[in-house]
Amino acid sequence: MDGNAPVYGGIEAGGTKWVCAVADAGGGVLTTEVIPTTTPETTIRAAVRFFEDRRPLAAIGIGTFGPVDVRPGSPTYGRVLATPKPGWAHVDVVSPLRATLGVPVRLDTDVNAAALGEWRRGAGAGLGTLAYMTVGTGVGVGAVVNGGLVHGLLHPEFGHIRVPHDLVRDPFAGSCPFHGDCLEGLASGEAMRRRWGRPAEHLDDPSVWELEAEYVALAVLNLTYALSPERIVVGGGVAKNPALLPAVRARLLALAAGYPGEPVPVDAAAMDEYVTGPFLGDRSGVVGAVELARAARPAPNPPVL
Amino acid sequence: MDGNAPVYGGIEAGGTKWVCAVADAGGGVLTTEVIPTTTPETTIRAAVRFFEDRRPLAAIGIGTFGPVDVRPGSPTYGRVLATPKPGWAHVDVVSPLRATLGVPVRLDTDVNAAALGEWRRGAGAGLGTLAYMTVGTGVGVGAVVNGGLVHGLLHPEFGHIRVPHDLVRDPFAGSCPFHGDCLEGLASGEAMRRRWGRPAEHLDDPSVWELEAEYVALAVLNLTYALSPERIVVGGGVAKNPALLPAVRARLLALAAGYPGEPVPVDAAAMDEYVTGPFLGDRSGVVGAVELARAARPAPNPPVL
Repeated sequence: MDGNAPVYGGIEAGGTKWVCAVADAGGGVLTTEVIPTTTPETTIRAAVRFFEDRRPLAAIGIGTFGPVDVRPGSPTYGRVLATPKPGWAHVDVVSPLRATLGVPVRLDTDVNAAALGEWRRGAGAGLGTLAYMTVGTGVGVGAVVNGGLVHGLLHPEFGHIRVPHDLVRDPFAGSCPFHGDCLEGLASGEAMRRRWGRPAEHLDDPSVWELEAEYVALAVLNLTYALSPERIVVGGGVAKNPALLPAVRARLLALAAGYPGEPVPVDAAAMDEYVTGPFLGDRSGVVGAVELARAARPAPNPPVL
Repeated sequence: MDGNAPVYGGIEAGGTKWVCAVADAGGGVLTTEVIPTTTPETTIRAAVRFFEDRRPLAAIGIGTFGPVDVRPGSPTYGRVLATPKPGWAHVDVVSPLRATLGVPVRLDTDVNAAALGEWRRGAGAGLGTLAYMTVGTGVGVGAVVNGGLVHGLLHPEFGHIRVPHDLVRDPFAGSCPFHGDCLEGLASGEAMRRRWGRPAEHLDDPSVWELEAEYVALAVLNLTYALSPERIVVGGGVAKNPALLPAVRARLLALAAGYPGEPVPVDAAAMDEYVTGPFLGDRSGVVGAVELARAARPAPNPPVL
């Protein structure tokens, strides 16, 4: 490695940890460091220190939990919006890094970053469209459509769609502080913990995972009909349970009932290709954050992705 | 009008009628003609005759009911897929026009065409993203994201997402032949006709429209969280009832519960701007079909939109 060649920085800014990485010009990750998420000041300072030690830096990309202002040119670009996470509402995660390190910083949601990472270097290689769904503490979706990440008024908040909730089968009222039994309120790790009294990784009753598969299959079905992605990657901590994805695929076939037919998967073999785990394992988000940096332009120019 | 300047043709190919139009190079519509949808042969022949009389033609765009193969380069490009419409399954709506008229033909769904029409010349002017939802005989969504219409494996089939269905309030089992009580099975004009025994335009009980507004609001909510469009245009025959959109906006505010907050509408004034009727009235689809023609390249090149 050339000690003078600039590196590209990436941060996967999560609720429990920030994963920081630097990569070479080709996007190959050179080093990573995990910083626990505490107060904004402490966390951001630790990230700055990580990157200061690895100069020269060309740019930094951040994929963060949201909702967050991802609109280039907005006066509040880079600020986290209404989050239930204590201390983090209205925090600007872009300016301190840009000011201290003096490089362009490009921000997107954690799931858009993960979608970009998988699209460029994982499950989406060669595809025109890709969606990434996380089922972890929360539920969210990022997607690449027409060569770019999906933005609009703000960014997708797919975790908050409403899905059918059979109160006889599942009397749990839902854990979302805004909506109660939206998708995230029924299917997230937090919902599982509250419904069953233990975290997802300590739950092994098959009926628990059957119910979880029902909600994730409804989510994947609605995402299929909303975006028609060429592949859907399902990541996140809850999705690591080996029983989940096979059950989701089977349930999805039944729910779709063959509609609209091929090229949308109509059999188990095609479904195995369509709904997959992340090819990059736990690194989809940080690899995607590096890819954001590699595409960065100084704000407030519009994003090129 | 210069008699020798080539015109651009557009067809809104619907289940009950085909609306054909020709426009000048700037996209201004010059003439339209309505052809009843009967057999594929008769309907397509009538469309060919309309365009033969208006040569020279530069290109034709078609927005059709679906599902339909919209993948340029596919061996079945232009074919209608599994449709319940008698006689139309597997019909190729592109080749006969291309062969007879000798011009490029570009195809998309009726709702993608309508989204394009409104984006270029109506409710979406100046916006980066726009979604168009039809609530008519069926329910569907088209959308512009990152400067292009949304495609993937195929095209969105948003009418078939699953939404909450309170069987106590609404014991109707749903009208979708594939899914029963998917969105279209609960909220389409066909669902209303079957649930209440009369077509939507003959229903004036407020409770009928309150229930309809509930489903359309759930649809608009899920679309908001899926795509984050800058505006959602709601068109189609059912949406012409003047009570519907105001009730949808009010219900949407309650369902979203202020999440994620601005810039997503959080009050009635912003909601009036966010959920609108079509600025082009009944012409969104055919104007969009003309816009498809104006962007057409000879297949099987990839579309530029």
